[in-house]
Amino acid sequence: MRAAFYISDGTAITSEVFGHALLSLFPMEFEHYTIPFVETVEQALETKNKINKSSKRSGEPPLVFHTFVKPEIREIIDSCDAIIYNFLEHFINPLEQQLGVKAKPKAHRTHSIHENSYDFRIDAVNYALANDDGGNISNYEHADVILVGVSRSGKTPTSLYLALQYGIKAANYPFTDDDMDELQIPDFLKKHKKKLFGLTIDAQRLIDIRHNRLSNSKYSSARQCRMEVREVEKLYKKEKIPFLNTTKLSVEEITAKILSETKLQRYKY
Amino acid sequence: MRAAFYISDGTAITSEVFGHALLSLFPMEFEHYTIPFVETVEQALETKNKINKSSKRSGEPPLVFHTFVKPEIREIIDSCDAIIYNFLEHFINPLEQQLGVKAKPKAHRTHSIHENSYDFRIDAVNYALANDDGGNISNYEHADVILVGVSRSGKTPTSLYLALQYGIKAANYPFTDDDMDELQIPDFLKKHKKKLFGLTIDAQRLIDIRHNRLSNSKYSSARQCRMEVREVEKLYKKEKIPFLNTTKLSVEEITAKILSETKLQRYKY
Repeated sequence: MRAAFYISDGTAITSEVFGHALLSLFPMEFEHYTIPFVETVEQALETKNKINKSSKRSGEPPLVFHTFVKPEIREIIDSCDAIIYNFLEHFINPLEQQLGVKAKPKAHRTHSIHENSYDFRIDAVNYALANDDGGNISNYEHADVILVGVSRSGKTPTSLYLALQYGIKAANYPFTDDDMDELQIPDFLKKHKKKLFGLTIDAQRLIDIRHNRLSNSKYSSARQCRMEVREVEKLYKKEKIPFLNTTKLSVEEITAKILSETKLQRYKY
Repeated sequence: MRAAFYISDGTAITSEVFGHALLSLFPMEFEHYTIPFVETVEQALETKNKINKSSKRSGEPPLVFHTFVKPEIREIIDSCDAIIYNFLEHFINPLEQQLGVKAKPKAHRTHSIHENSYDFRIDAVNYALANDDGGNISNYEHADVILVGVSRSGKTPTSLYLALQYGIKAANYPFTDDDMDELQIPDFLKKHKKKLFGLTIDAQRLIDIRHNRLSNSKYSSARQCRMEVREVEKLYKKEKIPFLNTTKLSVEEITAKILSETKLQRYKY
C-alpha cells in the first residue's frame, strides 16, 4: 500500500486536511502517517530518515504533504526520496501580489492558541457539559443555541463539536416519553424560542441505535421510536422551529448546516 | 477589510483550513464567510451573486477558496468577480500521474459519514462523557488512554477532542486535594498504568483559571495550586508516566502531542 506522510512544525492538521482532500479523490487505500512538531533541523533529518526508510521498505516513494515555509526545514523535507506536495508555495506569490503585502511565515500558525478564541472554546465546552441533556433548565439565557430532539438524535456530539471547534455555547434538551402525550415547548424554553434548533432522525435508524443501547425495551421499540419522531417533527412544523434530519449526516455536516441556517456567530474562525 | 469566502459542496471545512493556512501568513485582518453545501447550479448562482455583491460593496475583489471539482459548479464560481484559489486543481494531475490512477471526484468526500468511523466517534464521545472526571472508575479496561492531572489542567476538553476527531476512547481522572498527602497511582489505575498520560500546567496559569471559577478559595489559592502541580509532576517522574505541560498549548496541540507520544491508533484518519 502506498504510504502518505503528513508533516508540519505544528499539529499537522492542515497537512492532513490538505492530503486527505486530495487522496480522497482516488479510489485507493493509503497507509497514513502523521508527524507533528517538526521544528528543528535535527527533527527534520529524523523525519527524512523515516520517510526514506518507508520508501525503501515499500519500493515506492511515499507521498509527503507538508506546509513548511522555513527554508532550512523545507529543503530537508524536499530532498526526501518521496513525492512532495506543498500547497502553500503555489499560492503565496499570487496572494502577495493580490494583497500587496509580503507573507510573514510563523511557525504554529493555524492550530495553536490565539488570544480570545481559546478561553471561548473551553468556556463553551464547560457550558455544553453543564447544559447537556436538559441538565440545567435555568441557564438558557447564556446559550447561543439550544438543540432539541428525541434521545439519540445527535444533540450531545453536536453540542460538543460546536463548542470545541467554534466556541459556540450550545445547550441541548431532550424530548422524552413523558413529554409525548401533548408535546409542546416547555415553559422554560418558550422565552428562548428563537434559539431552538430541532434535530430529527429516521425512525428506523433511531430503532437501530436505541436497540444497541437498550434492546427489548419500550425505549427501543419500533412503535415508540416512530411515535416520538412523528411527534417532534409535528412540533417543529407547528412552532416553526428550524430542524434537520441527522440520519445520513456526520457531526461536521450537522454543525455546518446549523451554522449556515442560524447565522450563528463563530467565536473562532 | 478584505473579504474571504470559503465554499464547498460539503461542510467547507477543507476550504476553510486551506484558506486559513494561507491567510494566516499575512499580517492582515479578513472578513470571513463560509458557504457550505453548494450542490446545485442554482445554489452556485446564488453564491456567485453573494460574492459579486460583496465585491461591489467593498470595491475590492473577495478572495474565494474552494475545492469544487464538478465542472458545472466550478465554472460558475470561477466566473465570479473575485480572486479564485482552488488547491485541488494544481495537484490532481501530478497525483494522477504518480498513482497511475484517474481521480474520481465525488461530492461530500472528506467530512461526511464514512462506514465504521462514525459509530466509533459517537461511541467514543459517550465513553468520554461517562468516564469524565473519574466518573466511573471500574470501566478503564475499555479506555484507549487515561488522562490524569489536577483539576483544570485540560483533561476534559482533550478527552472530548480525542473522541470527536479520532474516535479514541479517553477517560480522565483528576488528582484532587484529598489525594495529595501521599500522592500515588490509585489501585484501580495501577493495572492500567500503561494507558496513563499525565497533564500538567504552570502554577500561575492554574491559579488564574481556578480564580476565575472559584475566587478566594483554597482551591484557587496560590499555595494549593503550586503544591498540587509540584506533587503530580513528582508522581509522573517517579512512576515514569509520560506527561505534558498544557499551559501554552491548544486542545489540538495537546491532542497531537499525545497521539505522537503514545502511538495511539486512530480510528478515523
